[in-house]
Amino acid sequence: MDLLLWFEYIGTFVFAISGTLTAADKRLDFFGATVAGFVTAIGGGTMRDLLLGDTPVAWMRTNNYFWVIIAAVVVTIIFRKHVMKLKRTLFLFDTIGIATFTLLGLKKALLFNIDPAMAVLMGMSSAVVGGVIRDILCNEVPLIFHREIYATACIAGALIYLVLNRLGVSELICETATVLSIVAIRIVAIRFNIALPRLINQKE
Amino acid sequence: MDLLLWFEYIGTFVFAISGTLTAADKRLDFFGATVAGFVTAIGGGTMRDLLLGDTPVAWMRTNNYFWVIIAAVVVTIIFRKHVMKLKRTLFLFDTIGIATFTLLGLKKALLFNIDPAMAVLMGMSSAVVGGVIRDILCNEVPLIFHREIYATACIAGALIYLVLNRLGVSELICETATVLSIVAIRIVAIRFNIALPRLINQKE
Amino acid sequence: MDLLLWFEYIGTFVFAISGTLTAADKRLDFFGATVAGFVTAIGGGTMRDLLLGDTPVAWMRTNNYFWVIIAAVVVTIIFRKHVMKLKRTLFLFDTIGIATFTLLGLKKALLFNIDPAMAVLMGMSSAVVGGVIRDILCNEVPLIFHREIYATACIAGALIYLVLNRLGVSELICETATVLSIVAIRIVAIRFNIALPRLINQKE
Repeated sequence: MDLLLWFEYIGTFVFAISGTLTAADKRLDFFGATVAGFVTAIGGGTMRDLLLGDTPVAWMRTNNYFWVIIAAVVVTIIFRKHVMKLKRTLFLFDTIGIATFTLLGLKKALLFNIDPAMAVLMGMSSAVVGGVIRDILCNEVPLIFHREIYATACIAGALIYLVLNRLGVSELICETATVLSIVAIRIVAIRFNIALPRLINQKE
Repeated sequence: MDLLLWFEYIGTFVFAISGTLTAADKRLDFFGATVAGFVTAIGGGTMRDLLLGDTPVAWMRTNNYFWVIIAAVVVTIIFRKHVMKLKRTLFLFDTIGIATFTLLGLKKALLFNIDPAMAVLMGMSSAVVGGVIRDILCNEVPLIFHREIYATACIAGALIYLVLNRLGVSELICETATVLSIVAIRIVAIRFNIALPRLINQKE
Repeated sequence: MDLLLWFEYIGTFVFAISGTLTAADKRLDFFGATVAGFVTAIGGGTMRDLLLGDTPVAWMRTNNYFWVIIAAVVVTIIFRKHVMKLKRTLFLFDTIGIATFTLLGLKKALLFNIDPAMAVLMGMSSAVVGGVIRDILCNEVPLIFHREIYATACIAGALIYLVLNRLGVSELICETATVLSIVAIRIVAIRFNIALPRLINQKE
């Protein structure tokens, strides 16, 4: 659990970086970049807590997320050129981030007696909604809607947790398997350029 | 009430279809289409429950909505060409959907002791917010903002409910009159191509 | 406090006007304009109450906001040309509005035992989120992200409140100083055309 908390901060940090970079792409000012960093980092958790009715929402109950995000925004703005070269490292951290957020969202939903099918949805949404809000704020069709395997990996990981959990496997192993499988699926998808097929309205 | 529940599932099903079709128009992938189906179907009810503070939100407390939506998305993706030819049937179901959602939103707000004026707003929003989110996700100015009578029909229906209810008319008749009047107003508006006038900032 | 309530209605009124005008710019119909007026006026307070878990949200518990907004929308639509010439008056009222909303958001967050750093965030968001939603609905990158000092003034005002409050200054003076400083910062920023620097991803 302690490790999970570390992972959560890493995820928050990396999500904030991604928000800030997107904002810079759109030529937003410092304030806009900070906001983009914030909503990307906390968007998923906020939606999770609002839907479950667990208020005030988690990130408002402690100062930690606040400072992690501020740190990420400042680092990104100051070391922009360097940060952008770290694509590969960022990708790994981002993947750890979505894996962790999926796990936390799933577990919290189960704790609130939400049915497993919906809890899986909740886990996945916790991971991806921040990025969706980021893209809406920047006036783009959310990246996640036309992109390599991403939310799908979260769903797969959440399902693996549920299956192992029902088989009576220990919590630690369930969690480890979930995080590792999400990371693995995403890496394989990127590596071999796997994507979901697009829908096209044939009009010929 | 039992009939109302059936109507609600029909509305959910049709809203999910409309979301999926819009996503296909935007060339989103399968995942994006599913998400668009979901948010269109549950967006209104989610906003209603969040504003009222009735959490976890209604659609998370049962599996039914989940499966209705999944079914709608799958059917739409598989039978896309056929679904698109059913415009007229879909239109009727969609209208039954917004009428039902309006009624449910209105009644729930009144149950939470919300003032009638605001309860009417709540009824209308429950019906239309799903479509607004769908359009925002797909990066368009929400259809509802420049379209034939739609939300206006919901408001009219909600007002009719309130008037009949205050006159002491039985619940069943109030509900029937509300649903029928919303359906009738929309059909007449479409038939005779009635729309609200546009605002223009004269700059000549 | 009584004065603060008046300020809140003034802010609500002016925000509703700004939403309606933006909608007119986008050639929305009357309904769209009304919705834009509403969300601009109540967006910030809604987010504040949802995040804190204070539901039903404040504006639904009384009819007052409803009628203030309706009045603003009607006035704007009828006297459009005249309203647009009042830019300077509107600007002053808008500034009083964000100052008041910041103060109310900040105080409510502190009342809910939110940590000061987050309470400042909450105050600022209460003031600016309505405008952000307005811009998203109208399919634009939110104005606030590439604009003169605005949210920054709210943050500064909120910090001033916290400092004075900790120094033991009386509530009335704290509140007055907060509102006046936000108004002053904004006027100075506009007057001398001060803005935050933009982020640019150097790609040369």
